[in-house]
Amino acid sequence: MKMNDYIALIDKQIDKFMPVQYPQRIFKAMKYTVTLPGKRLRPVMCLETCRMFGGNYEDAIPTACAIEMLHAQTLIHDDLPCMDNDDYRRGKLTNHKIFGEAHAVLAGDALLTFAPQIILKYSKSLGAEKLIRIMEEYFQAAGAYGVIAGQVVDIESEKLMQSFEFSGKIDVETEELAKTLQYIHTHKTADLFKLTLRTGAIIAEAPDEQIEQITEFGQNLGVAFQIADDILDETSTFEQMGKTIGKDKAEGKLTYTSLYGIEKSKKELNRLIDKCFNVLEKNNLKSEVFEEILNKIRIH
Amino acid sequence: MKMNDYIALIDKQIDKFMPVQYPQRIFKAMKYTVTLPGKRLRPVMCLETCRMFGGNYEDAIPTACAIEMLHAQTLIHDDLPCMDNDDYRRGKLTNHKIFGEAHAVLAGDALLTFAPQIILKYSKSLGAEKLIRIMEEYFQAAGAYGVIAGQVVDIESEKLMQSFEFSGKIDVETEELAKTLQYIHTHKTADLFKLTLRTGAIIAEAPDEQIEQITEFGQNLGVAFQIADDILDETSTFEQMGKTIGKDKAEGKLTYTSLYGIEKSKKELNRLIDKCFNVLEKNNLKSEVFEEILNKIRIH
Repeated sequence: MKMNDYIALIDKQIDKFMPVQYPQRIFKAMKYTVTLPGKRLRPVMCLETCRMFGGNYEDAIPTACAIEMLHAQTLIHDDLPCMDNDDYRRGKLTNHKIFGEAHAVLAGDALLTFAPQIILKYSKSLGAEKLIRIMEEYFQAAGAYGVIAGQVVDIESEKLMQSFEFSGKIDVETEELAKTLQYIHTHKTADLFKLTLRTGAIIAEAPDEQIEQITEFGQNLGVAFQIADDILDETSTFEQMGKTIGKDKAEGKLTYTSLYGIEKSKKELNRLIDKCFNVLEKNNLKSEVFEEILNKIRIH
Repeated sequence: MKMNDYIALIDKQIDKFMPVQYPQRIFKAMKYTVTLPGKRLRPVMCLETCRMFGGNYEDAIPTACAIEMLHAQTLIHDDLPCMDNDDYRRGKLTNHKIFGEAHAVLAGDALLTFAPQIILKYSKSLGAEKLIRIMEEYFQAAGAYGVIAGQVVDIESEKLMQSFEFSGKIDVETEELAKTLQYIHTHKTADLFKLTLRTGAIIAEAPDEQIEQITEFGQNLGVAFQIADDILDETSTFEQMGKTIGKDKAEGKLTYTSLYGIEKSKKELNRLIDKCFNVLEKNNLKSEVFEEILNKIRIH
């Protein structure tokens, strides 16, 4: 399967998995953000990982779509006025701008339990043991040990950089901030990447050693992805990104570029991408889809 | 076990299940609302149902505590400024008043996945099949088919009653409103009651027929509980209830008392309690704990 075939399949399946029922406004709000036009990076990676490890990618469809729903949940709540207060996402109004804050909070809540419900309902053939393992992975990544931990520390790091100026040398202060930033990127972004790769591998019944390899891949890719996002937040336009640009810097948020500047950030980004290619090569994993994803994230 | 023994056990276990970890503020926020002084009605009912159907109540402890966490999640988000905007709950400041709105949203999110994680982690001895069943029940009750459906319709019914005056006769308008109200009570309140009773029964391996009986019991008890809450919202004080009183009426919210008045509400409440006693008797179920709960909810 090519990238675009996967994307078309995922879009079709998400539409099927999410019929609008009574009370309509909540199901509409849930579906609105999940179906915003997007690259479907996380579900594509789940299907491709399953295939790459010798599984049938079709077995991973409900899990892949559920992870896209979980991703949407994090976007809806992160965009709320009490959090990042964003009006646009992927070029469209954010959830609370359309449905109001109360419904946006509830739509996020609903997606958090709707997503694993989809897995249990449509993946019965995987068997109870495997389903339990997927549930455990899902809760670990979705909760206070995963994306929420990242979001909390991210919020708490606001304004941290307002008076910081990188001297060009890495001193104690920089190291401390770098550790915090690594924590934020790991949990806020890489944890969902790892979830999608690990569950794809679990469904394919990959051995533990390979699951560890793909987890390392996900960690590097997730952090690279976030660094790229930080760079683009400073160098691109609203039209390119579909969201308000330059906010992080204006708010003194701890980001890769605020800590190290753009040039050093680009270097680190490309170093991580190289590491991802190495993991694939070392493990003899062939995937045009992953190569395409990795090359797209690079910034020269 | 007596009521108070169960409560002490649950409080002790919740404390054990919820160590405060890094990032501390989120774990503290989660634990704050879960451990507010309360009657622990839902977890007590889970343990007692398990015992009543011949199971070992100790097997139900993680599930019981998880349901209390889920209940706390609904309280945290319902109290938010964009929802019911409540400053007090059980006599204490609400979550967002202490931890701020962003952390309150995230604490609720975190509880939604932390709760089932506790079940999976500490109930392994139940076996994968039973755990999957408990997960299914949990998602059904917690999500857009359960409490969230109730909360959405509740929010959308605000101001519905501002110009309504009950004529003493049940006409088409009253019937339409009564249907909506039944929907709100069923999902917002009874669904969590049913969850706690059904999972207790599932853990005890009760036959399907008995699970249906206890579900009916939970439906009646849940609606009765909500009617009692509506009555007390009009007739009691802040000191008795631990939360701001009379808000529903002031805001023209659809409630049992706004629709039928206090006298008719009391009658319906006591009729439902009688029905609950009938279910116990008919099925030869003996439980001092449930008798105590039922008698406490009655209002004369």
